Amino acid sequence: MSETEIPDIVIRRLPLYARELGLLAGEGRDFISSQELGQRLGVTPAQIRKDLSYFGRFGKRGRGYEVVGLRERLRTILGLNGRVKEMVLVGVGRLGRAVLGYAGFRRGGFEVVRVFDSDPNQIGRMIDNHHVADVATLPQYLQSSRVAMGIVAVPAEAAPSVIEMLVSGGVRAILSYAPITTSVPSGVHLRQIDPVMELESMAYYLEAPFDGYVEDPQ
Amino acid sequence: MSETEIPDIVIRRLPLYARELGLLAGEGRDFISSQELGQRLGVTPAQIRKDLSYFGRFGKRGRGYEVVGLRERLRTILGLNGRVKEMVLVGVGRLGRAVLGYAGFRRGGFEVVRVFDSDPNQIGRMIDNHHVADVATLPQYLQSSRVAMGIVAVPAEAAPSVIEMLVSGGVRAILSYAPITTSVPSGVHLRQIDPVMELESMAYYLEAPFDGYVEDPQ
Repeated sequence: MSETEIPDIVIRRLPLYARELGLLAGEGRDFISSQELGQRLGVTPAQIRKDLSYFGRFGKRGRGYEVVGLRERLRTILGLNGRVKEMVLVGVGRLGRAVLGYAGFRRGGFEVVRVFDSDPNQIGRMIDNHHVADVATLPQYLQSSRVAMGIVAVPAEAAPSVIEMLVSGGVRAILSYAPITTSVPSGVHLRQIDPVMELESMAYYLEAPFDGYVEDPQ
Repeated sequence: MSETEIPDIVIRRLPLYARELGLLAGEGRDFISSQELGQRLGVTPAQIRKDLSYFGRFGKRGRGYEVVGLRERLRTILGLNGRVKEMVLVGVGRLGRAVLGYAGFRRGGFEVVRVFDSDPNQIGRMIDNHHVADVATLPQYLQSSRVAMGIVAVPAEAAPSVIEMLVSGGVRAILSYAPITTSVPSGVHLRQIDPVMELESMAYYLEAPFDGYVEDPQ
């Protein structure tokens, strides 16, 4: 089964399943049903079963999923059981510093190996044991290092050119905190962290219920 | 049409459409087809048409969507054309400070009106013109203020109790940066920002293609 046959939305749920199975393992659970797992995650058991069916058969009839085994399989499928994934970070403003200081990346097996900025006041400084390099040297660095993941923590106006540099340099997985929409070539994956959009979508639920069709229905 | 009839996934895409329409308006565009909008956003035109059909008919045959008008309608549907949405922020560590310093919230019509922390070294301090209050006073504050949105920027272990306090205090929209899974009562909306999970799901694409079924197929 090639990656193109598995919907991206399914791939995106696998880390959620893996994390919850990790918590269950910590609670000493050996097996869990799709019903209970679904309840804990707020998704339907049918969705869990369908998502997992892309990768094989995991459940044991009457017992459910084997917690540790399924978690390991999911992490292997995701490529997370290998060595640490190296990332470059572009942007060491307040957000970039929060990224550098977040222990969750390293715990998750991701490590920032080099940081870049365009601000002359930042270039050359040490931040959290990282030497801040000039973003102008990013293409050269990527060519020699072959780092495949990057984090973009620059202002919106700078983001498109930074993303272009990363893509040109062979980075195939980009996490962007910039509130812009941009397209990347097929084979490159871009995920955006956009807290304002999350708030906007929740604002809908704070308003009085929408009263339905107000223009010409057809 | 009640909110329960419109899938949440549709609501979550409306801010994306609104933002892109805002960019198009800035470029001086009057109309745009679902084809072009889809291309810019990396979604299918059919999905855009279907999403919008929940709220009425917007396209003009042969001309497409009226850019400014549709954007305004979407923002009205989302409840974003009213006054500023007030939020509490819990946690003023490195991440909470990045949240406080992020101008995008205010630009988007969201404003942190009160910040809380449990750390005695933070309580009482001024950070970005915000007085840091003791999280123990959060329930009392919520009762008197009726703020409906909250941002959680505390460590994972503290997050469940903070989320519970917010929910008990009437907060109905919560943005959480804590890497935990937790359920909230129906009527309360919780969105999680979890960069590690985003990275994990992209790691899949960096590995050699998965070779398909390795357990008993059925």
